[in-house]
Amino acid sequence: MKIKNGAEYIESLRKIRPVIYYKGEKIEDVTRHAATAPHMRSAAMTYALASHDKYKDIATATSHLTGRTISRFTHVHQGIEDLIKKIKFLRVLGQKTGTCFQRCVGLDGINATYSVVYEIDQELGTDYFERFKKWLIRIQDENLMVVGAMTDPKGDRSKGPADQPDPDQYVHVVERREDGIVIRGAKLHMTGAVNSHEILLMPTAAMDERSKDYAIVCAVPVDAPGITMIFGRQASDDRRDRRERIDSGKPVFGAVGGEAVIAFEDVFVPTERVFMDGETEFTGMLVYRFAAHHRANYGACKTGLMDVLTGAVSYLTQIQGTARGSHVKDKITEMIHLCETLYCSSIACSAEGWPTPSGAYMVDTMLANVCKQNVTRYHFEVARLAVDLAGGFLATLPSQYDLESEDVGHLVKKYFSGVAGIPTEYRMKIARLIEAMTGGTALIESMHGAGSPQAQRIMIFREGKIDQKIKLAKALVGIPVKKDSPKKQ
Amino acid sequence: MKIKNGAEYIESLRKIRPVIYYKGEKIEDVTRHAATAPHMRSAAMTYALASHDKYKDIATATSHLTGRTISRFTHVHQGIEDLIKKIKFLRVLGQKTGTCFQRCVGLDGINATYSVVYEIDQELGTDYFERFKKWLIRIQDENLMVVGAMTDPKGDRSKGPADQPDPDQYVHVVERREDGIVIRGAKLHMTGAVNSHEILLMPTAAMDERSKDYAIVCAVPVDAPGITMIFGRQASDDRRDRRERIDSGKPVFGAVGGEAVIAFEDVFVPTERVFMDGETEFTGMLVYRFAAHHRANYGACKTGLMDVLTGAVSYLTQIQGTARGSHVKDKITEMIHLCETLYCSSIACSAEGWPTPSGAYMVDTMLANVCKQNVTRYHFEVARLAVDLAGGFLATLPSQYDLESEDVGHLVKKYFSGVAGIPTEYRMKIARLIEAMTGGTALIESMHGAGSPQAQRIMIFREGKIDQKIKLAKALVGIPVKKDSPKKQ
Amino acid sequence: MKIKNGAEYIESLRKIRPVIYYKGEKIEDVTRHAATAPHMRSAAMTYALASHDKYKDIATATSHLTGRTISRFTHVHQGIEDLIKKIKFLRVLGQKTGTCFQRCVGLDGINATYSVVYEIDQELGTDYFERFKKWLIRIQDENLMVVGAMTDPKGDRSKGPADQPDPDQYVHVVERREDGIVIRGAKLHMTGAVNSHEILLMPTAAMDERSKDYAIVCAVPVDAPGITMIFGRQASDDRRDRRERIDSGKPVFGAVGGEAVIAFEDVFVPTERVFMDGETEFTGMLVYRFAAHHRANYGACKTGLMDVLTGAVSYLTQIQGTARGSHVKDKITEMIHLCETLYCSSIACSAEGWPTPSGAYMVDTMLANVCKQNVTRYHFEVARLAVDLAGGFLATLPSQYDLESEDVGHLVKKYFSGVAGIPTEYRMKIARLIEAMTGGTALIESMHGAGSPQAQRIMIFREGKIDQKIKLAKALVGIPVKKDSPKKQ
Amino acid sequence: MKIKNGAEYIESLRKIRPVIYYKGEKIEDVTRHAATAPHMRSAAMTYALASHDKYKDIATATSHLTGRTISRFTHVHQGIEDLIKKIKFLRVLGQKTGTCFQRCVGLDGINATYSVVYEIDQELGTDYFERFKKWLIRIQDENLMVVGAMTDPKGDRSKGPADQPDPDQYVHVVERREDGIVIRGAKLHMTGAVNSHEILLMPTAAMDERSKDYAIVCAVPVDAPGITMIFGRQASDDRRDRRERIDSGKPVFGAVGGEAVIAFEDVFVPTERVFMDGETEFTGMLVYRFAAHHRANYGACKTGLMDVLTGAVSYLTQIQGTARGSHVKDKITEMIHLCETLYCSSIACSAEGWPTPSGAYMVDTMLANVCKQNVTRYHFEVARLAVDLAGGFLATLPSQYDLESEDVGHLVKKYFSGVAGIPTEYRMKIARLIEAMTGGTALIESMHGAGSPQAQRIMIFREGKIDQKIKLAKALVGIPVKKDSPKKQ
Repeated sequence: MKIKNGAEYIESLRKIRPVIYYKGEKIEDVTRHAATAPHMRSAAMTYALASHDKYKDIATATSHLTGRTISRFTHVHQGIEDLIKKIKFLRVLGQKTGTCFQRCVGLDGINATYSVVYEIDQELGTDYFERFKKWLIRIQDENLMVVGAMTDPKGDRSKGPADQPDPDQYVHVVERREDGIVIRGAKLHMTGAVNSHEILLMPTAAMDERSKDYAIVCAVPVDAPGITMIFGRQASDDRRDRRERIDSGKPVFGAVGGEAVIAFEDVFVPTERVFMDGETEFTGMLVYRFAAHHRANYGACKTGLMDVLTGAVSYLTQIQGTARGSHVKDKITEMIHLCETLYCSSIACSAEGWPTPSGAYMVDTMLANVCKQNVTRYHFEVARLAVDLAGGFLATLPSQYDLESEDVGHLVKKYFSGVAGIPTEYRMKIARLIEAMTGGTALIESMHGAGSPQAQRIMIFREGKIDQKIKLAKALVGIPVKKDSPKKQ
Repeated sequence: MKIKNGAEYIESLRKIRPVIYYKGEKIEDVTRHAATAPHMRSAAMTYALASHDKYKDIATATSHLTGRTISRFTHVHQGIEDLIKKIKFLRVLGQKTGTCFQRCVGLDGINATYSVVYEIDQELGTDYFERFKKWLIRIQDENLMVVGAMTDPKGDRSKGPADQPDPDQYVHVVERREDGIVIRGAKLHMTGAVNSHEILLMPTAAMDERSKDYAIVCAVPVDAPGITMIFGRQASDDRRDRRERIDSGKPVFGAVGGEAVIAFEDVFVPTERVFMDGETEFTGMLVYRFAAHHRANYGACKTGLMDVLTGAVSYLTQIQGTARGSHVKDKITEMIHLCETLYCSSIACSAEGWPTPSGAYMVDTMLANVCKQNVTRYHFEVARLAVDLAGGFLATLPSQYDLESEDVGHLVKKYFSGVAGIPTEYRMKIARLIEAMTGGTALIESMHGAGSPQAQRIMIFREGKIDQKIKLAKALVGIPVKKDSPKKQ
Repeated sequence: MKIKNGAEYIESLRKIRPVIYYKGEKIEDVTRHAATAPHMRSAAMTYALASHDKYKDIATATSHLTGRTISRFTHVHQGIEDLIKKIKFLRVLGQKTGTCFQRCVGLDGINATYSVVYEIDQELGTDYFERFKKWLIRIQDENLMVVGAMTDPKGDRSKGPADQPDPDQYVHVVERREDGIVIRGAKLHMTGAVNSHEILLMPTAAMDERSKDYAIVCAVPVDAPGITMIFGRQASDDRRDRRERIDSGKPVFGAVGGEAVIAFEDVFVPTERVFMDGETEFTGMLVYRFAAHHRANYGACKTGLMDVLTGAVSYLTQIQGTARGSHVKDKITEMIHLCETLYCSSIACSAEGWPTPSGAYMVDTMLANVCKQNVTRYHFEVARLAVDLAGGFLATLPSQYDLESEDVGHLVKKYFSGVAGIPTEYRMKIARLIEAMTGGTALIESMHGAGSPQAQRIMIFREGKIDQKIKLAKALVGIPVKKDSPKKQ
Repeated sequence: MKIKNGAEYIESLRKIRPVIYYKGEKIEDVTRHAATAPHMRSAAMTYALASHDKYKDIATATSHLTGRTISRFTHVHQGIEDLIKKIKFLRVLGQKTGTCFQRCVGLDGINATYSVVYEIDQELGTDYFERFKKWLIRIQDENLMVVGAMTDPKGDRSKGPADQPDPDQYVHVVERREDGIVIRGAKLHMTGAVNSHEILLMPTAAMDERSKDYAIVCAVPVDAPGITMIFGRQASDDRRDRRERIDSGKPVFGAVGGEAVIAFEDVFVPTERVFMDGETEFTGMLVYRFAAHHRANYGACKTGLMDVLTGAVSYLTQIQGTARGSHVKDKITEMIHLCETLYCSSIACSAEGWPTPSGAYMVDTMLANVCKQNVTRYHFEVARLAVDLAGGFLATLPSQYDLESEDVGHLVKKYFSGVAGIPTEYRMKIARLIEAMTGGTALIESMHGAGSPQAQRIMIFREGKIDQKIKLAKALVGIPVKKDSPKKQ
């Protein structure tokens, strides 16, 4: 691994020059800008743990391509053990950053692409797999951060790509040259984009025959000409003054992933970086595998966040004098219960993993969809319980400026204190942490990241094997099962 | 009514000089300061509707003390019709402001105090009721805004007032003079305090014999010497630049009530403004009546907010092209269902209202507690559904600066558009409205305002008439009911 | 009222001779047959309370047609007070019988028909209203029990009446004579049918032009020639031996209403008993009003049942020694909370009642639908909590035969005892009561009676005034509202 | 395996003579009695699948004691693969019987005892382990069915064993002889007891020093002198006439496990069958391990049941013509989602299994408790959804006698038909299956089997590692963590 730790990662970012806007202005250095630096620090944790004795085993892997030690975030899963170690690594990262660390999306893109392009080549005689491996070995060796870019803007959602009034609502090829292709469009909600090295583009949905130009998989560096990023706003994103470190809730790491729009205004991609071009019949499989991997991960990172939230609330009840209340214990029990229920699905879909023809391991797709579906419910409920136990002062707490004010600081210290001996500042810090982790952006991301709830429900119904279940019921009451006339719903 | 409309209300605030701090600095004019003005405008709506033909009937009442037309927010409920009209008025105000309009807390304080001090006088021969009526007539005639001040800081919550290491954790009398009393302490989470005229202080809980100095009800003007307010932070409270009107989500009105700490550092209260002083045996009744009224109201104002949220999400699905999806309709149905379930409890506890000895009407206390308990569940769930239907771009949307930027404005307009013909700006405005109404502060207030969830559960259990219910069960299976040995749990 | 109490009611049933089958055999006397008598006793309670001083006020009303005192179950609601008294009466009846007392369905049929046929006459110049009043005065004066018969078998639910392979899947006119009509078909799930005097038939859904023969409202005596009833099975319906009185759970009253199929095999109905014949355009209104009234009632009778269940479980925890557990109290609190939330909607839709042109009062239809929707959720949840607190022995308890056995009675008494001094028999009785009230039939009826859950959701969405809500949201963020182009979803 | 298939199992039961009562009478042959035979048939399925090619791999194992092929139900888990295969076997059995097949409880008793007595011997120098292995080898070789007997009657639940007025409320030693012990007491809710060969007794809870006589583990044959069983009632348990095969819902297999009281009236147990006697300090560990294994299993067998229920409901909607409704699909999706969420926890706690000192593998205890906790919620919800989709006729359906009646059979056939071409009988069979699987006993067992909900919550809180979670939160906001002063809640 060329990049061996957090410091080297940060250094590496300073050498590239992506075009990034935020609040109408250009960001010159993402590693130092108040808006982007906290997110970059979360990603840096993925690099840091790789050299940490305690975590090395889960944070790294041995490349099946080169035999070299690589970051697990660049690894193609070679078995169930890999899938489970990844889950454990993600939970630890969630615990240590209390937020999104952004590298899953690239990892899942790599794994989905690897297995699918192998099958394209097998069926169609193309050579995407070799191209992709070459690119991947570089990613592994240099330990680059890749943003998996899937979600298109979609414009009018009642219409597909080919029927949009504006064809650019889905990324597509606008020109084909001898040495490559030119693409146009945009990808939204790009987690970690501003502090990544590479973009791996994938189609956002299964494409039909009419949408060949939209069936594109390719890789581009973040600073390729024609690329512009716009960094999105987050709840309370202006609390970044030095005297608002407490008020930010998370003085070191960001909230959520730090998402950006990536606009591609006629970006050239050389042939060796193109991994799918027009094979519409494989787009569904690609999206599906990516989504399954990504949904599996949400039950790992989010449980890390819930661990933090449970700890924060437990501590707060201790320093407020309410920890012994039976309803307090019961609600904390419920937080843990929901968190571990979620974790079960990440572990289970990994334990039930299976090898694709390429050798890359997939998670069980039913259980992975179940996992993400529960994230969209439980994260809100855990947050609701945290807010319940923390108390109403979360919503009315004065600022750090007031805490430190000569005029009113004594009042804040006095009237926001808890049990004797604990500094008011501790109580405020924890309150702000809970505020940051339960409000707005944090929960919205849980709802929609890796696909909105309805997307999972469609898959759960489809994979539900209704016909087999009907046979079970018929057998129990003695209704004849006609074997050769499967009924379709 | 001296103050007849919103403009006169705003004018009246400019004539008083409360001491208010925010982010470490003094606010000189609450009507113009970016942090407080939006909240003041919500309160102004309560004045504005009183002169509006369509709403006059629910917005005003006839004083039973003077026979004059007064704001409903200064009225002592004289019957069930009053209680129901109030509920309807609150829902309209919620619909028109999308937030807290702050005057309930004073109204509920007035109603609770009125009925309780009447009973104190009856029992103990005191003359609090006359004092209170005199004060109230002035409030009604001048149409002043009153902040009902109940919640004390409480310090170590495992200890009562008399056992706190710091006696000031509950407001108490520190000196008794011939002409009045001197009080010290603080009240937290004071909704609307910074744009009120008067403070009506009440004890925060039932007091025992040892806490006579804490059993105080009295009124003080907001700018009395010794009073200092500190205005709390809210989620995304820095989005107040003119070029962030969209990003604020609510360009006119605030989020929640604009809560403040009110510190009382040896404030003198003249005798004619003291309505309870040491009658600990009546504190429980006062708190209970205040809480019941206040809890009843939450099912009215919050349903107004949910109406806005339902409308916002419905519109968003229309302009995104998803409105016809069956799961979309089902989730909107659920939002409406939860909203109306909540409304039912506000109507029901009013329809089951009953007269206190003073003639002031109380709501049914069981049903009022049930109402608030459901607020603490349904508001989160309605918000969750709104976030689900709105889509992930709520969390990643670029700023208004970017929308208006010469460099990237065209990208924002293009890639955040929806169905043809609708300006991207509309979609952004609605998204930001939903963001503001579903994140952080908005929901935390719903959880804890008018009492935390556990407070309602205690009342629900207490009022559950378990013994009577046991008799019903015994009767059905033929177990003898011993009439004169009631079993206590 | 000719029938003045329970005994007279029972006597009256012995004078009529409906054709009823159960388990393949004819029931000769419903008042004495083990399958039907318990249900009849529940209905008898509606008669009994009318002469009870404590309940007279809610159990009777003054007929607006005759000025005479009548049973509230034959009354046309003349105002909000009537609607609310009815709700309170239903809750008391639920408390006293722990089950369905069956007379609502006739009451709601009377009220819906009364108001709708008035409007038919007004619009079309027919004379249904006079016919109906004449019939109704007899019902009131004699105090007859009427079964409101709405639900048709429906056959293939993907097809309407006119498209069914078998036209009899909906009741319809098969012959028109000078002096009346002949009808054929069936009504399912007819609550209280076997112990009623009269059947009031109504169409089961809004009918279109092609279904004129199905748009029929008429009344027939239960023993009219051509009518056959088949009494349905219920959970544990064979526990009726004298030595199974404990095991039945409810030794006096039945579980649910005692539902029957009523088949009409060419039944003649004289003209004076026909209240609608072919006016398809009014069928929707009729169904809608009936359903709204009926849905409103479910929040009253079921809360009566929940009161019994809460009492039963509370008592059981006392005699098992678990009543003081904090989680026990919390679950009982939740049972009460859900029960009272439900009650709120019954009260609220009544308090928001409104007069139809005939003078008959309707409940608020939105809130009535909300009420029933919650029944379909809360009754299951309350049952689940009851089962949780009661303990697993509900499912494994030996029989009353064993309790009374010379061989093993001593073991049952010893090993199913609870706290000292309470006979084991008491514990068993309460356990069996809970078993009877939480299993199978009891909950299924709550789910589907007065319309299945989806039926309410359709109405809630339709009445949700989405367009108005959208205007509220637009107003708050400054999106222009085009007044004259309402958008339809 | 001596017993190789279902037929041999049934034969083996006819050779033993346990004393069993049901409804006050003695059962002479459990394999033929209408009350017990259906349950015996479910257990027989565990024997039958062992010789079935498709299931052999999951249904059998290789004994680590003898190297011989044995039933998985007599196996001590030797690794994670064993744990996962067991889960898959249980789900298949649930699918094939739609009910409890009863052998888990013995399996879990074997595994818990094996690992705990090993540790007792290690610590105290006793020789329980050798005794136990000898007994176990016989169980394995003969393939006997063992009922794990844990739950004592408990009498007054606010008191422990030593404080009960009646000492027999917990099984205990009443006499110690040279060659063995004499025990007295009873075990309740004994699943499969009446059709088992052996009883493995274990204490029901952690015992303290004062309860040495209650700290007993031993094995006795079901027909040992002094043992009396009383078979409990189940919902609708009298539907066993030949003409009620449809009405029974499950013509072949029983509902739930067929639970019995086992009373021990001075039963002698020879020393070689005593595996713990007085080692109170190990009782907690034993109960805990047993409970964890047993809780893990509930997420497997119950998902099998939910598969059946989902199939039954899906089929019913097809033959009623409602299968295409979007709300129907959505509810079936939810049934599948909850089922698979549950399955995840069974798989996950197995995948996270760990070896005890004896080599026997334990499941992850946190995740196993989470699993069972969800059973107590999801089974009710899945049942509620099934009842919703099935329709109200579940509660009002006439009997099979009526279907076959010459008088009314034609009416039942006609009016309970669905889409053309499907016999009414099929619709009735499926309806009765759903009725049997969603009502009363079936759900009560899910709630309390393997421990009531609160039992799991206590474990979840205990294992929640709150202190570690607090450290995570502190680290994120910069509050110092004092390493050596762990705070206990």
